[in-house]
Amino acid sequence: MNSDLLSRFHGVIPAGGVGTRLWPLSRASAPKFLHDLTGSGSTLIRATYDRLVPLAGERIMVVTGWAHRGAVVAQLPELRDSDIVLEPAPRDSAAAIGLAAAILYRRDPNIIMGSFAADQVIEPVEVFQAALCEAIHTAATGKIVIIGIHPTHPSTGFGYIHTGQPLDVANAPSARGVEQFVEKPDEETARQYLASGGFLWNAGMFVAPVSLMLHHLEANQPELHAGLMKIADAWNSDERKSVLQEVWPSLPKIAIDYAVAEPAAAVGDVAVIPGMFSWDDVGDFAAIGRLNKASAEDGIINLGDKEVRVYADSATGVVYSDRPRVIALVGIDDVVVVDTADALLVTTKQHAQKVKQTVEALKADGAHEVL
Amino acid sequence: MNSDLLSRFHGVIPAGGVGTRLWPLSRASAPKFLHDLTGSGSTLIRATYDRLVPLAGERIMVVTGWAHRGAVVAQLPELRDSDIVLEPAPRDSAAAIGLAAAILYRRDPNIIMGSFAADQVIEPVEVFQAALCEAIHTAATGKIVIIGIHPTHPSTGFGYIHTGQPLDVANAPSARGVEQFVEKPDEETARQYLASGGFLWNAGMFVAPVSLMLHHLEANQPELHAGLMKIADAWNSDERKSVLQEVWPSLPKIAIDYAVAEPAAAVGDVAVIPGMFSWDDVGDFAAIGRLNKASAEDGIINLGDKEVRVYADSATGVVYSDRPRVIALVGIDDVVVVDTADALLVTTKQHAQKVKQTVEALKADGAHEVL
Repeated sequence: MNSDLLSRFHGVIPAGGVGTRLWPLSRASAPKFLHDLTGSGSTLIRATYDRLVPLAGERIMVVTGWAHRGAVVAQLPELRDSDIVLEPAPRDSAAAIGLAAAILYRRDPNIIMGSFAADQVIEPVEVFQAALCEAIHTAATGKIVIIGIHPTHPSTGFGYIHTGQPLDVANAPSARGVEQFVEKPDEETARQYLASGGFLWNAGMFVAPVSLMLHHLEANQPELHAGLMKIADAWNSDERKSVLQEVWPSLPKIAIDYAVAEPAAAVGDVAVIPGMFSWDDVGDFAAIGRLNKASAEDGIINLGDKEVRVYADSATGVVYSDRPRVIALVGIDDVVVVDTADALLVTTKQHAQKVKQTVEALKADGAHEVL
Repeated sequence: MNSDLLSRFHGVIPAGGVGTRLWPLSRASAPKFLHDLTGSGSTLIRATYDRLVPLAGERIMVVTGWAHRGAVVAQLPELRDSDIVLEPAPRDSAAAIGLAAAILYRRDPNIIMGSFAADQVIEPVEVFQAALCEAIHTAATGKIVIIGIHPTHPSTGFGYIHTGQPLDVANAPSARGVEQFVEKPDEETARQYLASGGFLWNAGMFVAPVSLMLHHLEANQPELHAGLMKIADAWNSDERKSVLQEVWPSLPKIAIDYAVAEPAAAVGDVAVIPGMFSWDDVGDFAAIGRLNKASAEDGIINLGDKEVRVYADSATGVVYSDRPRVIALVGIDDVVVVDTADALLVTTKQHAQKVKQTVEALKADGAHEVL
């Protein structure tokens, strides 16, 4: 890739989201992105960072909560202080990603940002990086470029992108226009999408000139845009903290899709690169069963680093314990056991999605100390 | 009952047996009889003792292992020191019960002993006590009297007693002879036994003159008899410990059924009283599900005394934790979760019997510290 173009590229990693369906392993104090859920030897945020380095070098920014500063720095010791954006409290994705765009814009209005959530699993990385190269080239033509995911099943849990005509972009042969974004569909509709071949999952991965991002943000969410620019203006001054604390709580809470991507698509400013890599958002313990490297060998996956001796009469399952002990699993296939100091979860891979309801029940009961 | 006869009666409670299928709750250091498994508010040994008090008063002896002395005394503070018989190591039931018989014989050769395992659940106690009265009257005529259990299902896990003709014993209208003892049958045979109505489970409950017990022991196991009498002779002297340590390890290991009951039955010295009470040996966690008082109300039974908050989407299950925590059970009916400091068991009531295999696997692995 043209080195002038590459030097404009900055990675942005929004690291938020507790990962409710992975409770009690993933929780407010130790969210999903801080765990090595796939047995790769890297936490999800470390792996996300490492995927961007070949293209972004050290030009990578992380947006996360105050509470996670220490853990993020421990995972990414090379992160410069100016590249850690700490949210005082979660205010949805448009505020988080918009703030990164605004800070980068003040640094250099020619920057092209690429935003990639900290808790996704992508393989092989080379295929991802090839798609990212195409996305950067396409973004440079003045587009917000989504890297879409080829759907592998009729999921009702993701939004879809209806792809449009091929675009004629140099060095980006697979770039296409976007017909429209569609919300999470029902299963029948999802089946039709899958059969048609013209739909991709929207996993929130996009590459765009920060100027174009801010242009659409200003057009569609002027109040949010003004607030973010005010914070960005104070970012490299002594007033950063006071302005952040004053402005942040008043910002509108809205997803980046509604604030930017959909209105931009409506005026033809969005393109898509179909990603040919495999992708997983590690949404629940069943996903861990699929993704973990240990699966093929042992049957029972031990997620923790403690000396856990498992005695099981079933061939498959997922186990985590935060202390050394014996765990005996008798007569339950695909069992999931997550054993933390204050909470124990027992379920099966088939029921892994329902963990969310348990967390909601705990919330309703005010049991915040275990969430 | 005639008070002379009653004053001859002494209860004996053999308190041994780890309760392998109740691991890791029940284990070598805290066997089954030391737990309140039914939610009655009493441990099994305390309940066994209390069932005997109306007939035996304080004339109750416990035979248990050295290691359990403290726990047994804590449960039964009224137990006199001379009524605690501590085995240096387990040597099967003939040695344990035979030693109690020999010690009681030396105390008074006219004693009638009644032996009742420490880990059985019997209700209603008044019906048990009525059967025990009949058994004492029958024993006084010179019989070893088994209190048999009406089988409720074709169990292949118990020995059976084929009942004989009614005996004509004053104050014991239901006393019968014993045709023969039969070993644990296969399921088809067990069904035939159940259908015939002439078979009872042998739960090891018996009442007998100690002199008659020792007579048959001498006739069938002279070496065992001689050893036990030698220990009994030294029991109230300074030599108790040294003689016990010298003789005990050399005693033959044999079950009381083979050493006494079966040969005695062959010469017509055994009778049976059919017990009309309900009985359970709390063999596994499924039994706890049946027996526990909490079952009717909450669905999920919490066996421990710690503050455990259970979130479950199934209506039935058994839970134990030795520390306060949240336990979430998602999508598994009849789940059993037993959470101890060094071992965690997850199974279902349907697979509760298989816990034994896990314990055997742990033993084979040399994991004695958790057994």
